[in-house]
Amino acid sequence: MNKVILLDKRPVGKPQISDFKINIEDVPVADDGEILLQTRYVSIDPYLRGRMNDAESYVPPFELKKPLQSGIIAEVIDSNNTRFKIGDFVLGNLDWKEYQVSDGKGLRSIPNEPAYLTAYLGILGMTGLTAYLGLTQIGFPKPGETLVVSGAAGAVGSIAGQVGKFLGCRVVGLTGSDEKVQLLKSKFHFDEAINYKTTVDLNRAIKAACPDGVDIYFDNVGGKISDAVLNNINKYARIPLCGAISLYNESGPVLGPYIQPILVKKSALIRGFIVSDFADQFPAATKQLTAWLMEGNLSYHETIYEGFDHIPQAFLGLFDGSNEGKMIVKI
Amino acid sequence: MNKVILLDKRPVGKPQISDFKINIEDVPVADDGEILLQTRYVSIDPYLRGRMNDAESYVPPFELKKPLQSGIIAEVIDSNNTRFKIGDFVLGNLDWKEYQVSDGKGLRSIPNEPAYLTAYLGILGMTGLTAYLGLTQIGFPKPGETLVVSGAAGAVGSIAGQVGKFLGCRVVGLTGSDEKVQLLKSKFHFDEAINYKTTVDLNRAIKAACPDGVDIYFDNVGGKISDAVLNNINKYARIPLCGAISLYNESGPVLGPYIQPILVKKSALIRGFIVSDFADQFPAATKQLTAWLMEGNLSYHETIYEGFDHIPQAFLGLFDGSNEGKMIVKI
Repeated sequence: MNKVILLDKRPVGKPQISDFKINIEDVPVADDGEILLQTRYVSIDPYLRGRMNDAESYVPPFELKKPLQSGIIAEVIDSNNTRFKIGDFVLGNLDWKEYQVSDGKGLRSIPNEPAYLTAYLGILGMTGLTAYLGLTQIGFPKPGETLVVSGAAGAVGSIAGQVGKFLGCRVVGLTGSDEKVQLLKSKFHFDEAINYKTTVDLNRAIKAACPDGVDIYFDNVGGKISDAVLNNINKYARIPLCGAISLYNESGPVLGPYIQPILVKKSALIRGFIVSDFADQFPAATKQLTAWLMEGNLSYHETIYEGFDHIPQAFLGLFDGSNEGKMIVKI
Repeated sequence: MNKVILLDKRPVGKPQISDFKINIEDVPVADDGEILLQTRYVSIDPYLRGRMNDAESYVPPFELKKPLQSGIIAEVIDSNNTRFKIGDFVLGNLDWKEYQVSDGKGLRSIPNEPAYLTAYLGILGMTGLTAYLGLTQIGFPKPGETLVVSGAAGAVGSIAGQVGKFLGCRVVGLTGSDEKVQLLKSKFHFDEAINYKTTVDLNRAIKAACPDGVDIYFDNVGGKISDAVLNNINKYARIPLCGAISLYNESGPVLGPYIQPILVKKSALIRGFIVSDFADQFPAATKQLTAWLMEGNLSYHETIYEGFDHIPQAFLGLFDGSNEGKMIVKI
């Protein structure tokens, strides 16, 4: 018996449990060159919401009545492929199925280290690579510079801030609650953190937290928060633009002050990116992140749900704020 | 007798002739290490308006009751400096004076070729360098790509478009009159040009003129025109942001749709710049522009006023549309 989770209806606004359907199929058999995989850990990410719409984006939309997909760690339980042997662990973008076959394309073998296995979905996976490569390849941080991170307590933001600290920056985080402000300063070693929801004059709060101005702004949110940061950038500021989550759930374009005048005045750079833009640098980046992690210097947080059937609930939980850091389902 | 033009009052809104004053001084004498210069050609540029305000910008403001300055070509008429001899021509940021002394710092010797002398204020000077370096160092044009230029009939825009053509791009210009549309196509060899003032749906007009989308957008204007171009950018688009002239004369910030979502979706880059950001590349860029100019393949247009006393009128003329291309005063 093999459970499969399908997209039954395209969500309208906030996703509902009824948008998903669990089907039962046979366990498939690995053909020549194929491996049979058993799902162990499923990565649950906000970007999946976008793929549930029938709209063009940087990844194609999910098909209705077809299995959903995300980053998955699976164990090889049968193999007709010389690259993999039974007991290997692999990471890849796989279907939400308990069992599935694969020809191995796009799969990466990962060490079966129980203590770090889920790290490959987060800090050693797309999340960590997004933070590290966006910051280093667009932000070019130099020791002594000031880095501001928005969405700082999120999975990507909290790593971007820590990487900035390793590279010698003063790091200031913007986040949405006093608890997260404390978390950023204690667990993630940010120099300063600001609760943008309770701050009356965000522009001035950023100025106070960044007495030498802002050299790098790792932006996950866009909108008014980013306007306040832009008011404080230095000459030659670099802005890795990772997301604009404050603007995604709006039905039409949101208006704000044009940013071109400040960009000209400060000779500043903004570059939107998705982690795959830097695919050629994944091995070197993973090596660096692994080294920091093994040295015990890189903190991360995850929320782990248990059981295949709870994948939809875990996804809905992203929108209730039930997760802290990376959301994962363990099967 | 030596005439000098001072900033008598800071202009409010559109500059007036009464904002300037002509004084008479003695002709100075070149000391040890100095040269005496006679002004021959004065560059008259829109950016000078900004320096007349008492406000922070990328260049410091002019002082009241002090001489104004701009790019000037002068002849060395006396020399106590071994770098320069009588009869040499130099280019530099100099005072609006008929005669002045200099220690030679910041001055560049230029060949006394009457046919090309004024080119050093335009196409071989800051104007040409701005167009060439912004396009090549930020836009990285590749053969077959589509380049859109706003403010295309201006001194910088018309060169940016021609450089794009040399480098194998399809080049589309945005400009404000039907005459300029014709000029762009006939004199400057743009593939297409659009009069944004008479086009009802600019978004659609750009789409029609750029069937393969926009890879590079050399932006001089910002605002609504740029919003329409951004709607048509391709994945990995590059946007050298040279100016935002549509937004400069407004009293407060102008609102428009936030551009972060499209930048993330397209992994696109915007970088504001001023030509001095690329100062280390001036020699190589000047060499390339000179070669194209000498081959007769690079067109430029200039409006030349005559007589030192007419410098203020020439400056006011920038705001009446009296100039076509680069505005210069010949002394």
